[in-house]
Amino acid sequence: MSINEASRAYGAQKSSIREISAYANARKAEIGAENVFDFSLGNPSIPAPDAVRASIERALALPATQLHGYTPANGLPAVREAVAASLCRRFGEKTASAGDLYLTCGAAASLSITFHAIVNPGDEVIVIAPYFPEYRVWIETSGATCVEVMADAKTFQIDVAAVAAAITPRTRAIVINTPNNPVGSVYSRENLDALAAALRDAEKRLGTTITIVSDEPYREITYGAEVPWVPALYDRTIVCYSYSKSLSLPGERIGWVLVPPTNPEHDDLVFAVAGAGRKLGFVCAPALFQRVLADCVDCPTDVEAYAENRRALTDGLARLGYEFIKPEGAFYLWVKALEPDAGAFFERAKALELLPVPSDSFGCPGWVRVGYCVSHETIVNSMPAWEKLAASYR
Amino acid sequence: MSINEASRAYGAQKSSIREISAYANARKAEIGAENVFDFSLGNPSIPAPDAVRASIERALALPATQLHGYTPANGLPAVREAVAASLCRRFGEKTASAGDLYLTCGAAASLSITFHAIVNPGDEVIVIAPYFPEYRVWIETSGATCVEVMADAKTFQIDVAAVAAAITPRTRAIVINTPNNPVGSVYSRENLDALAAALRDAEKRLGTTITIVSDEPYREITYGAEVPWVPALYDRTIVCYSYSKSLSLPGERIGWVLVPPTNPEHDDLVFAVAGAGRKLGFVCAPALFQRVLADCVDCPTDVEAYAENRRALTDGLARLGYEFIKPEGAFYLWVKALEPDAGAFFERAKALELLPVPSDSFGCPGWVRVGYCVSHETIVNSMPAWEKLAASYR
Repeated sequence: MSINEASRAYGAQKSSIREISAYANARKAEIGAENVFDFSLGNPSIPAPDAVRASIERALALPATQLHGYTPANGLPAVREAVAASLCRRFGEKTASAGDLYLTCGAAASLSITFHAIVNPGDEVIVIAPYFPEYRVWIETSGATCVEVMADAKTFQIDVAAVAAAITPRTRAIVINTPNNPVGSVYSRENLDALAAALRDAEKRLGTTITIVSDEPYREITYGAEVPWVPALYDRTIVCYSYSKSLSLPGERIGWVLVPPTNPEHDDLVFAVAGAGRKLGFVCAPALFQRVLADCVDCPTDVEAYAENRRALTDGLARLGYEFIKPEGAFYLWVKALEPDAGAFFERAKALELLPVPSDSFGCPGWVRVGYCVSHETIVNSMPAWEKLAASYR
Repeated sequence: MSINEASRAYGAQKSSIREISAYANARKAEIGAENVFDFSLGNPSIPAPDAVRASIERALALPATQLHGYTPANGLPAVREAVAASLCRRFGEKTASAGDLYLTCGAAASLSITFHAIVNPGDEVIVIAPYFPEYRVWIETSGATCVEVMADAKTFQIDVAAVAAAITPRTRAIVINTPNNPVGSVYSRENLDALAAALRDAEKRLGTTITIVSDEPYREITYGAEVPWVPALYDRTIVCYSYSKSLSLPGERIGWVLVPPTNPEHDDLVFAVAGAGRKLGFVCAPALFQRVLADCVDCPTDVEAYAENRRALTDGLARLGYEFIKPEGAFYLWVKALEPDAGAFFERAKALELLPVPSDSFGCPGWVRVGYCVSHETIVNSMPAWEKLAASYR
């Protein structure tokens, strides 16, 4: 055997989200796309802004050796300057400079690189459940243990007391994701302030350091809620970003890691992020889409389409008596299953061609995630099936 | 401290190739680009073929959500089919099918993923020195030990007896790179056959399995030599490829890993490669450039420009009395330093504005690598400096 068993297992075990999505596609081929209500994936349903295409066309005028050549490992300086300038305009003048940014092949790369930059074998990293299941894969691959702390059962804000209780001398980091996948919650300033205070308190008590890894691909997709800038609340923060959702470019793999200048270990962390990228086999972020960023970093995200879907879905499900967490951001609705076993509830939904994702996939029982980054018709036309599903429980 | 020290060190320690290249750029700004002879980098000097631009323009006509959306983790099926069909046309009808291919973010990703797919902590991986220095980084990150075996001192073919002597019960893989960076050699069929026989013999003797990892980004850049298809000579092979050199797309990060159907652990390895990609934070290869592959997989590489550079450089240096390995592939000339210490020789060259890379960077003393993926003028105009350098040793 010349095989790494952990790698084989990660390859053989499909993500349940991808499995439901594959089933949806097969089912659509069988009975017609209009008869299957696929709420499984987080693939943006609104197209990339026109500015992206214009930027690509402009880039094609460059000499090809320049356009497609290697860039520095952390990205083209002009692109990092444009991103830093945008962050400064939005969050304050000393938020970031070009040297604080490391451009990546998307959010997965940002997070994987960050974990490899900060943890050592034996460390613990806290995640707030329900959580994006790949967090566990990347945390474990970096050599750390993934420690789940359930969010507040009512509000799905961070349960700060539970986090404080879970911290040990080995706790090296906590991952937060706001706006949140899968719940759609946005952590309030009060909630984040309380978290920051609890972490500072634990650091002092234990003589350790705890980093917040702030995973923010949904920052631009909100429905009125404020999304506080985490490094302004807690120094020891690293921000992971991706343009997959804000510019609808998930397949192009482009994002960044920011080590804010206020992070007390800034200089070492900038090296550690670059070194982690190098170790894992990342050479540079795709060059053409680096250039697209320089042009499109301030393009507004067309949130209105998601807002309409959100309205139709929440109004419809409320009318039918479903309980859910009112989404303040991202494009997911977290709906309470009508029986304790989310898997069994999912099977009944599936029989009606409704395909959400059961919450067990996210480390939490009793709910389903309904992704509303779909066509508006899918939402409207799914309502009779949701009605039948509810009726089947009466 | 919330830092992984190995990552910090990998980030702080620059590759010497990149350092020389940075010095070259600074020096050009100082004394004029035409007065600096920068032979340090492997950035292709010929542009991507026109078909690449045409393919991008064609792709832009697709709906943006389709064009830029997530692809399957192993890549778009139609693209993998196109690559597999091309391999079958070139190397025989059962060479590959779509399911054997995993598209990657370039050669670095292909290699890093392959090592994580096959090795376990404590394993040893053999590299043939001189070798691309990042091999060591990725091998060590996967948990294995990097074991250097010097190539034949005269021909720079694989020294099969030395490889056989280096094999232990822990040897899990050997990396070969033909056409070779940094030497420009191409391993002959006889040489590869002898290697295969030695590996089979060691497997039998030790009761272990040894994989050939064949790193082939320079396969298309040859000057008449045959580049044998390694899986046809040795079953337990994995092929790593990239379009960085053949299509001049190094910044776009696009390549693949092939688990040939003849590999005795094929099915498990296909899973292990996918799982290793997932573990490391690769979600899919950049979507737009996946589509470019489908159109351009059979585009011929414009080798003639490199061939002219090779002629000018080898003719010129031969006239001046330099010793070198006649390059049969890639775009590097391996030139014997005029004193035993390649670093000291490099310093004298540098004083004359000649910037090759000393061979110590590649795990081998006494030579320099001269990258001739530069403009033809750079080669012609560098000759007086090479002459002065030689004269300074008389």
